[in-house]
Amino acid sequence: MSLIDTILGRPLASREAGEQRIGIARGVATFGLDALSSAAYGPEAALTVLLPLGAAGLTFILPITTAIVILLGIVYFSYRQTIAAYPNGGGSYTVARENLGANAGLLAAAALMTDYVLNVAVGISAGVGALISAVPNLQPYTLTLCLVILVLLTLVNLRGVGAAGTLFLLPTCIFIVSLCATVAWGVLATISAGGHPQSVVPPAPLPKVAEVVSVWLLLRAFASGCTAMTGVEAVSNGVQAFREPVVANARRTLTIIIAILIVLLLGIAYLARAYHIGATEPGTPQYQSVLSQLIGAVAGRGIFYWISIVAILVVLCLSANTSFADFPRLCHAVASDGYLPYSFTDRGRRLVYSEGIWVLAILSGVLLTAFGGVTDRLIPLFAVGAFLAFTLSQSGMVAHWWKSQERGALASMAVNALGASATTLTVVVVAVVKFMAGAWIVVLLVPSLVALMLAVRRHYRRIERETAPRGLKLNDLREPLVIVPIIAWNSIAENALRVALSLSREVEVLHVESEDSDAKSLKELWPSCVEQPAREAKQAIPRLTVLKSPFRFVVQPILDHVLEVERKNPNRTIAVLLPELVERQWYQYFLHNQRARILAARLLLQGEHRIVIVNVPWYLRKRR
Amino acid sequence: MSLIDTILGRPLASREAGEQRIGIARGVATFGLDALSSAAYGPEAALTVLLPLGAAGLTFILPITTAIVILLGIVYFSYRQTIAAYPNGGGSYTVARENLGANAGLLAAAALMTDYVLNVAVGISAGVGALISAVPNLQPYTLTLCLVILVLLTLVNLRGVGAAGTLFLLPTCIFIVSLCATVAWGVLATISAGGHPQSVVPPAPLPKVAEVVSVWLLLRAFASGCTAMTGVEAVSNGVQAFREPVVANARRTLTIIIAILIVLLLGIAYLARAYHIGATEPGTPQYQSVLSQLIGAVAGRGIFYWISIVAILVVLCLSANTSFADFPRLCHAVASDGYLPYSFTDRGRRLVYSEGIWVLAILSGVLLTAFGGVTDRLIPLFAVGAFLAFTLSQSGMVAHWWKSQERGALASMAVNALGASATTLTVVVVAVVKFMAGAWIVVLLVPSLVALMLAVRRHYRRIERETAPRGLKLNDLREPLVIVPIIAWNSIAENALRVALSLSREVEVLHVESEDSDAKSLKELWPSCVEQPAREAKQAIPRLTVLKSPFRFVVQPILDHVLEVERKNPNRTIAVLLPELVERQWYQYFLHNQRARILAARLLLQGEHRIVIVNVPWYLRKRR
Repeated sequence: MSLIDTILGRPLASREAGEQRIGIARGVATFGLDALSSAAYGPEAALTVLLPLGAAGLTFILPITTAIVILLGIVYFSYRQTIAAYPNGGGSYTVARENLGANAGLLAAAALMTDYVLNVAVGISAGVGALISAVPNLQPYTLTLCLVILVLLTLVNLRGVGAAGTLFLLPTCIFIVSLCATVAWGVLATISAGGHPQSVVPPAPLPKVAEVVSVWLLLRAFASGCTAMTGVEAVSNGVQAFREPVVANARRTLTIIIAILIVLLLGIAYLARAYHIGATEPGTPQYQSVLSQLIGAVAGRGIFYWISIVAILVVLCLSANTSFADFPRLCHAVASDGYLPYSFTDRGRRLVYSEGIWVLAILSGVLLTAFGGVTDRLIPLFAVGAFLAFTLSQSGMVAHWWKSQERGALASMAVNALGASATTLTVVVVAVVKFMAGAWIVVLLVPSLVALMLAVRRHYRRIERETAPRGLKLNDLREPLVIVPIIAWNSIAENALRVALSLSREVEVLHVESEDSDAKSLKELWPSCVEQPAREAKQAIPRLTVLKSPFRFVVQPILDHVLEVERKNPNRTIAVLLPELVERQWYQYFLHNQRARILAARLLLQGEHRIVIVNVPWYLRKRR
Repeated sequence: MSLIDTILGRPLASREAGEQRIGIARGVATFGLDALSSAAYGPEAALTVLLPLGAAGLTFILPITTAIVILLGIVYFSYRQTIAAYPNGGGSYTVARENLGANAGLLAAAALMTDYVLNVAVGISAGVGALISAVPNLQPYTLTLCLVILVLLTLVNLRGVGAAGTLFLLPTCIFIVSLCATVAWGVLATISAGGHPQSVVPPAPLPKVAEVVSVWLLLRAFASGCTAMTGVEAVSNGVQAFREPVVANARRTLTIIIAILIVLLLGIAYLARAYHIGATEPGTPQYQSVLSQLIGAVAGRGIFYWISIVAILVVLCLSANTSFADFPRLCHAVASDGYLPYSFTDRGRRLVYSEGIWVLAILSGVLLTAFGGVTDRLIPLFAVGAFLAFTLSQSGMVAHWWKSQERGALASMAVNALGASATTLTVVVVAVVKFMAGAWIVVLLVPSLVALMLAVRRHYRRIERETAPRGLKLNDLREPLVIVPIIAWNSIAENALRVALSLSREVEVLHVESEDSDAKSLKELWPSCVEQPAREAKQAIPRLTVLKSPFRFVVQPILDHVLEVERKNPNRTIAVLLPELVERQWYQYFLHNQRARILAARLLLQGEHRIVIVNVPWYLRKRR
């Protein structure tokens, strides 16, 4: 136990839940990394689509980013309302379920779950991939590194939400400070240079024009840039992780995350245009990330550059942690409504929903292993889920305002309707653009998950219906018929028979006699060892039944006999008493046959309703 | 069941045992293949050691073979006596145990078991190896072929001893007839040519002299040639497989096997000298087996040659079957005395000792897999065990005659003493010569096996002692204290409580309340749903105990409470009643927690002596 205590921390009592809650700073580190890290790849994704336009592409990046930021603002506004309306957490799932019905909620849940699992695999392998491009000697250990990071993240999250927040605070701060400093520095330099700053390290030259601008290209650039918005729903799922006042703290955390993200997105777009920074073709030796070019252009390749680059890599890697914070909470919310196994609602020793953490770790571990730690092919699957969830959440808020009597509800509804339209458009564009590249998997997977959750719910409902509480019925209570199968007369059998007689006056001892064996000893001992003492103690006398087994089967004749007794005695409980030698060492398992266990399992499966199994253990004396 | 019936045959009743017994012809095919196939490699092994002597080596092969044949005669005589003295089978194990004590018997058993497992692996891989040298394209499938043959042999043997004998009769006949015909033909040709016959296909030229003859070299040649004697003990282990009169039939079978083996050994040695056939260096491209050279020299490379070669390959492969016939019988004999798990004494559906067959198949399958189907490195481990068993058996017979009052006992004792000395010498020579090449493994393994069997026996003796039969004690019989842990009040709990009240008037219902959960419903329902009906039915009223669980553990508080009740109530039986929802589909396993099973296992392991577990199943209605 002390080893587990060291790794996972001491068990926390339920009443300590309050002390485990987090404030705003740790909230940003826990729930914000997915959203913030997307500043590192969102603008780059849009610029990559604009590549064929050459230098002209840069004129479009600021409008596209502005559109994304407006969409982000609408989504932010929506989730801000969601946090206040649903302070118990649940985010898109809760909003969609409450306002659009259970199926819409499950659709949002399935979409988010898919995205969370992908996010862990893609986040970790992106971080490890960046590390390996810096230290190519680590190449053979790609998968090992991914799995080590996965195990560490799992352990940190099993220690509780506070541990993760504390541990990730420093890299998050460095990431935010260095990127904001770069933006501020660059903007000042641009203004002081009259809009045409000089790069310290010149960025890669922009390619020649290969295409003319079209609406479809701009739509694709917008859709790709929208990956910057993944992770925005995280806070709304985890409201209950915050310290009192929960709603205010969660809202402030969300505001800070979105504000920083907007500053970074707009700043990067502005500076990309000012410094003439475009994307470089991925997978070529000339490849250099947009942020690397930007920091180099603004600040040169000094110590600041390297600290920033390392912070970006670490934050990319840790963006997986947002999934660890949210996936278990989402599963908890869904399981509370009966759509997932109830065990997802159990809080573990550190008050986190351990089962969700394990399931997430196992699923993403399987993904990482299947793809050998290189998950490039998973990226097209990504973001479809997030935007589907946004759309459902926005639509849910439209329905929410529609039903609401609050002042200003109509204005709020208009904003959410705008957001819903925009995210619907986005999810359609993303799904169409990426369909052949793999988004079809998500399009198949999400409805399957919904079907699975509905099946789980049906099963639980059925059990609930069939086990509905009722008053205790005792009018026809009779003691059970007890059947004791024994192999030979020894003290194990004697002990079992004593227990049998303490339970009922109707006891039948079963003995299977194969023609090989010599059952005489039992029949001979019966009168003196059993009948005589029973008569003397004025107890009921047990009956001995010997079953013939021409084919040497042992379990089958007993099973047949017990089922026959059950059939012949309706309204009686049949207690089958199985004497069992308890093996304290695993290797003793091989020394005794497991027929009692096989018999118990088959009786439970084949019995009608009235067979109960009584295990009577027998212990060897402990050795000195 | 019908698929199993097709593969393994219908179950046989115990009284059909007589019909499963075999006669002499199938006896030779079942128990003789190991011994007979050794004619294919015994003389070759001796000739390989004689290689450095060049042509001069051939002058020694006849005397060496004569010595081996004399030893074989002595061993034959000994086993003939053994069959009569121990008609229930057991061979070396039984003889050694009866006459030299249990440890000597176990030593013989361990040695034979090791040899049987090695024989399966080496036999199959020798056959497959020969097949591959004929069809090199099969090389990549070496291991697969080995395992397929192993599976087939296992299935045939699980079908029963008759099936194996029938199936292997034809290749055995072809093998015996073709080799005896070769010997007869060659001897006639030699005599008619005045001792200097002309080879039809000339054998490989003999190498130049590289060494002078020494006693050590001749001893090594003798030791290697003695591998021709492995498998001779097989019949004596399997006497009970024969039809009545068992002793006479087993003896005749042994006589036929030994007679053919002697004819083949002497014939091969005589013809090797007459036709100037020596061994060729193994592992070189010039390699050709002695028998291949011999048949070619006598009969040319016609259809007869190819039929004979194929028969030799098949019989080499099937020599593994002798192990399958004997290993389970040996294990049965050892297990009957309590030195191995009793399950080795159970006869399966086809009246064979199935467990021994499975264990042999698994062990040799592991060996084949570990060595990739090429078991050359195992050959040095081979034969040490057989000769150790011979030695113990011979020594046992010496002791047997010493105690015997029969006429001629002194003469018999002298023969066995001679045999014991010869086999002792052989085992020492074999172990010393092959020690570094791997025989040391056997020298370590055999005593470990003996220690293991002694430990098994000690365990069984301990159980026997502690469970010695005693009369039923009923003087202090009281109904049990029943404890029912329940999660919520529903019909599963109601059903369990009904069963509990039918067993005892002292029933305690346990409920674990974590601070998270809302246990009010149970406490509120208790008076109306439980106490009221119990009072009305004039039954004892169950007690409700609510346990607090600040750390949300469920199993631990129940366990602690039950152990506490057991401590406080000495002399009482505590029945813990576990309501259980029976899952009929495997996937339902994930939908319900397995706490009841964990609790049952921990109660059985940690309880003192008086806790019994009652499983009360609850079934969902079957779907239409």
